[in-house]
Amino acid sequence: MLLRACWAVPRVGVRALSVAAAMPPTLASLRSEAERALDRGDAPGRPITAHGWVVSARRQKTRTFLEINDGTLGGDATLQVVLQGDVRDVTPGQAVCLRGAMQPGRGQKRSQRVELQANHMDVLADSDLATYPLASAMQRHAQSNDSTIAEIVRRESHWKARTPRFAAVVRTRARMELAISMWFAENDFCKVAPPIITSSDCEGGGEIFRVVADADMRHRQGPSAFWSGHDAYLTVSTQLHLEAFALGLSRVWSLCPVFRAEGSATNRHLAEFWMCEAEFCWLPEGPAGLHRVLDCSEHLVRRALQAAWEGERARDDMLFLGAQEHAAWLTQPWPRLTYTEAVRLLRSHHAAPPAWGDSLRSEHERWLADHFASPVFVTDYPSGSKPFYMRENSATTTLTPDLHPTRAGAEEKTVACFDLLVPGVGELVGGSVREERLDVLQARLAEAGLHTSRLQWYTHDLRRYGGAPHGGFGVGMERLLSWATHTEHVRDLVGFPRVKGPLRY
Amino acid sequence: MLLRACWAVPRVGVRALSVAAAMPPTLASLRSEAERALDRGDAPGRPITAHGWVVSARRQKTRTFLEINDGTLGGDATLQVVLQGDVRDVTPGQAVCLRGAMQPGRGQKRSQRVELQANHMDVLADSDLATYPLASAMQRHAQSNDSTIAEIVRRESHWKARTPRFAAVVRTRARMELAISMWFAENDFCKVAPPIITSSDCEGGGEIFRVVADADMRHRQGPSAFWSGHDAYLTVSTQLHLEAFALGLSRVWSLCPVFRAEGSATNRHLAEFWMCEAEFCWLPEGPAGLHRVLDCSEHLVRRALQAAWEGERARDDMLFLGAQEHAAWLTQPWPRLTYTEAVRLLRSHHAAPPAWGDSLRSEHERWLADHFASPVFVTDYPSGSKPFYMRENSATTTLTPDLHPTRAGAEEKTVACFDLLVPGVGELVGGSVREERLDVLQARLAEAGLHTSRLQWYTHDLRRYGGAPHGGFGVGMERLLSWATHTEHVRDLVGFPRVKGPLRY
Repeated sequence: MLLRACWAVPRVGVRALSVAAAMPPTLASLRSEAERALDRGDAPGRPITAHGWVVSARRQKTRTFLEINDGTLGGDATLQVVLQGDVRDVTPGQAVCLRGAMQPGRGQKRSQRVELQANHMDVLADSDLATYPLASAMQRHAQSNDSTIAEIVRRESHWKARTPRFAAVVRTRARMELAISMWFAENDFCKVAPPIITSSDCEGGGEIFRVVADADMRHRQGPSAFWSGHDAYLTVSTQLHLEAFALGLSRVWSLCPVFRAEGSATNRHLAEFWMCEAEFCWLPEGPAGLHRVLDCSEHLVRRALQAAWEGERARDDMLFLGAQEHAAWLTQPWPRLTYTEAVRLLRSHHAAPPAWGDSLRSEHERWLADHFASPVFVTDYPSGSKPFYMRENSATTTLTPDLHPTRAGAEEKTVACFDLLVPGVGELVGGSVREERLDVLQARLAEAGLHTSRLQWYTHDLRRYGGAPHGGFGVGMERLLSWATHTEHVRDLVGFPRVKGPLRY
Repeated sequence: MLLRACWAVPRVGVRALSVAAAMPPTLASLRSEAERALDRGDAPGRPITAHGWVVSARRQKTRTFLEINDGTLGGDATLQVVLQGDVRDVTPGQAVCLRGAMQPGRGQKRSQRVELQANHMDVLADSDLATYPLASAMQRHAQSNDSTIAEIVRRESHWKARTPRFAAVVRTRARMELAISMWFAENDFCKVAPPIITSSDCEGGGEIFRVVADADMRHRQGPSAFWSGHDAYLTVSTQLHLEAFALGLSRVWSLCPVFRAEGSATNRHLAEFWMCEAEFCWLPEGPAGLHRVLDCSEHLVRRALQAAWEGERARDDMLFLGAQEHAAWLTQPWPRLTYTEAVRLLRSHHAAPPAWGDSLRSEHERWLADHFASPVFVTDYPSGSKPFYMRENSATTTLTPDLHPTRAGAEEKTVACFDLLVPGVGELVGGSVREERLDVLQARLAEAGLHTSRLQWYTHDLRRYGGAPHGGFGVGMERLLSWATHTEHVRDLVGFPRVKGPLRY
């Protein structure tokens, strides 16, 4: 009786290893199956069921032409449907289910090689044309360049995934993330989950978020009651914790949201974004160690960029987004120069150059990438402008008049770090060799005026007991996506962007 | 001159597509390369360089035996090293670099088929045996069952990745996450990034965290100044936002940290954990729609579990962790029964059974999974015990005396939802068909007494305009890992666990 009770309920396809049988095919798979049949010279024609949203409808006396999409086709491609008869009440935005058969298409575009000859349509969910904000643009089928649509979905994020442009960006991101996951696995890196809530605010300089239990706030128990009086923050980088993982597992990486409580009037900064961070041991001494970190990040970024173009749908997405093909960047080596060389270059070419010791401003970074017309690595920045954990170089830099007008002759310290600057975006990756010498680390912490007691585990324990030479880097995922997809505004990259100001959603 | 400046800096291996050439091999790859050479009948023997930490050292007059590990070998395997001469000052915990050649090993275990005959050793980082907390256990090489070590690393998380048990758990997690990523990609699901900071607290019931800019807190500007007076929370589930993505892209998933401000004296709950959530459109009507969601989650969980056992190192990890092989669960279908059937079963077998309408307690869930000795799906729970967004079933349930002693004859509503219960852990997956009918949704929100104005985009817009039938599920990653690796304590699953109480790290 017991078994009857449980065996009696429906069990659908539980033995299959793929869900293909358990889920209706996507338009992408229906289309490519029909195209393969055409290529083989077979008639398409077996009965199929297709699901999607109506993008546009054109009624004639004897038949109705629909364009439908389900978000799985590349770029702004749709599937053309030919329905017999003059079908009333079909409007853009409706969710429909169609039965029929695929046949050779009558369109000119490559995406129109096949079309669906339908004999039955069910409207699964209606859409009121008069009030649907995206309706008019969907009818014109010109969302890509329609600034009205762009404005609507910037304000009303919940429509965003229905626009071809954002859908193409999201699909590209997914392809790049998968390529990144596979690259790390192939190279024996272990993915780990460092904490998002953290006790350390040492990098934040105040631009950091606090995490407070809502009940503590409302019952006025003090903002840290949940944490027994400790302060809790949202992480700005998982690096310090990642180092603890690396010093047992040799090669680790993470893909985590990170948070910065910064914001400007222009809202160009995201308060929440995703970072891919890697940390690994066994670096050789000297410049070779740093260049190994550069190599690793260069390989990874190349692989991600390559994935954005891999496959027909990926190419359709990238071409639709107007992303130029980065073929040259995928095969040519990326120039590497030191901060000192970069300053020298800027001082002889740029209108408002830095002096040695100044931070490179965004305009300098973009100038350098544009100048080389390639991603470019800048290494060995001045010690004073970089965080305490970056390894101090043993060689010092002697300032010359072309580097600093008034301080020629000074001996300056640098650290074994780098930024990868890319055309149009600026800084994409940052990384360094980590300071493994406890005395140097303590001196740099003291210089920076940082409290160290809470970081004793990091500074002392990780270094005094088998603190193997290690380094790592972080890639901003939204910046990578912005670069790959030629998307300028961060708000167009992220589904529900978090920026300073009113919070919806 | 410009080009000279940039070409003059070292460029290492920038044309290679793999970093293999740019990074020193791991012990795992050195070992498997030597084993393949042995299998082919070749003498190993080419000069190699190996890096790792000393696990134990045994000195003899003419030679010294070391066991080293770099975190890439499976289980508690180490690489045996034979160094000529009586080597002084070699201690557990040191990071070392060894030069020599691989040769057939002299040990009995499979992991000892090869060993390293070394002629040179550099200590890259020392470790003070007298003060290193893990040293004594490393020497005894018995960490796996050493409760002292377990206690030390529960208190001091930064040592955790150095213990074989936690390292095996982390590697298993990475394998399962990669398998999950690939399964979704193969099945045309698009990975998306829903927001972590959210404006909605509708599911939290108060056990939720607030996100406050640190500067606002310190300058007493009011906790919501950064958000222009709006409230910001850490997400408890990405589902609502995921639905907006699914209604444009058809099949989406996410892997995100989620947060609950709950805690008990036993600290068995994590305040921060990771959820894999999926959402997809085009479900058929009625029970078949729900069972499609079950199918999808069943396939995914099977694939993840399979990945935990795939490959030699994976098997070494799982066997070391004492995880029983789940072979039967990978091939046999998982029983499915309704909540009503589950209550009937519990009322005839369990000492403290629920009446129809009660929530299933953890003990009931575990009893059901143990009873079937298999993962088991329980579907169609009472409407009143489940969130507003789950789809109401059209058929009602008539209570009988064996379901509820005093309410026989009552007609009760259920929702098209499910929990997947697994032996030893309890609830692993939860999911449902989503309520796509606006009027029903509004009635359920009103019943639950929830404020709806902030959710208008979800309730109204997503449903009035092409709100295709859809559903989804969420898998708790730490629970999945706990089940796969037979790890009881959550603190042993996560590198830096966040629980109510003092926050370190």
